[in-house]
Amino acid sequence: MTNKVERHPARPIYPTPAGLVASIDSEGKPNIMSVAEIFNLSIGDPVWIGISIREATYTHGLIKERGEFTVNLPTAAMLKKVLGCGSCSGRDGIDKFEKYDLTALPAKHVAPPIIAECPMNLECKVVGFHPVGDHDLFIGEVLVEHIDEDALDAEGQPDNVKLDPLLLLRGGFWRMGTKI
Amino acid sequence: MTNKVERHPARPIYPTPAGLVASIDSEGKPNIMSVAEIFNLSIGDPVWIGISIREATYTHGLIKERGEFTVNLPTAAMLKKVLGCGSCSGRDGIDKFEKYDLTALPAKHVAPPIIAECPMNLECKVVGFHPVGDHDLFIGEVLVEHIDEDALDAEGQPDNVKLDPLLLLRGGFWRMGTKI
Repeated sequence: MTNKVERHPARPIYPTPAGLVASIDSEGKPNIMSVAEIFNLSIGDPVWIGISIREATYTHGLIKERGEFTVNLPTAAMLKKVLGCGSCSGRDGIDKFEKYDLTALPAKHVAPPIIAECPMNLECKVVGFHPVGDHDLFIGEVLVEHIDEDALDAEGQPDNVKLDPLLLLRGGFWRMGTKI
Repeated sequence: MTNKVERHPARPIYPTPAGLVASIDSEGKPNIMSVAEIFNLSIGDPVWIGISIREATYTHGLIKERGEFTVNLPTAAMLKKVLGCGSCSGRDGIDKFEKYDLTALPAKHVAPPIIAECPMNLECKVVGFHPVGDHDLFIGEVLVEHIDEDALDAEGQPDNVKLDPLLLLRGGFWRMGTKI
């Protein structure tokens, strides 16, 4: 059996599903934040997801104020756009939709838009907020999901290969592999 | 641009890193639970991770009582053991270490053991608990991580290919793919 080596931990869980979070300011201008990780908390009834965000970010304030956001799961092919959205702040007046050629579609139940280019979009209403160390946890109830018709298989179920999720792993980005 | 189809959501975030959670009862007998998902909450100072567990599970009670657990990240090659640990309950007196040929190693700071066969092991102390819909969120501070010496690269950093993480995606299990 192999030896175990002890290390000081830092973001120890891997890999994590990356995403784009859309929010909106008081004047109706939408913004996008790249997040390294989104997770399921309550899976059936209700459906709640979580995102952990630093207080210093522009999106943190927008979600806290409005109590709504959308989660948009990109394909691995969208990596450049995801990195772009993570490289600048809406606080500086940047329109990330325009800058990174992303399309805002109106959501059905919340004010922030969904991002057309992402094959999966979740409309979320904040139902919980907890400080968690160097981040804050926003818990969102998922009101509805939208999925690209093209990303459904013949039975109308999500096609995992077409969804082509983008994974973050120790600072690098990875594709999904094969089914076991 | 493709049409969007509206769907009722259910566990909408994908894929998620699967894991084995070890806990211990008041008499010192350890137990293992398979979880579909573990996530990072606070990434640097402190390092906190989260697991969302149903109240009905045996592990829920054990963690609530002891306030300690370990997270053990399996390789994709360990799928059978992960499925096994998820198919029965320690409440029925089953020793999952024995049944699934897993080795309990003593942890350094917590009472529950780490699982030798998993290349990454985290010792966790509960620092937060929140009901989250149909699950409860346990927040664990990661006191130390243990990694297999064999899973380190030439620079002593974790080798993501050797770690070979196990991913859950809509009821199926998948391997990691390639770096982008």
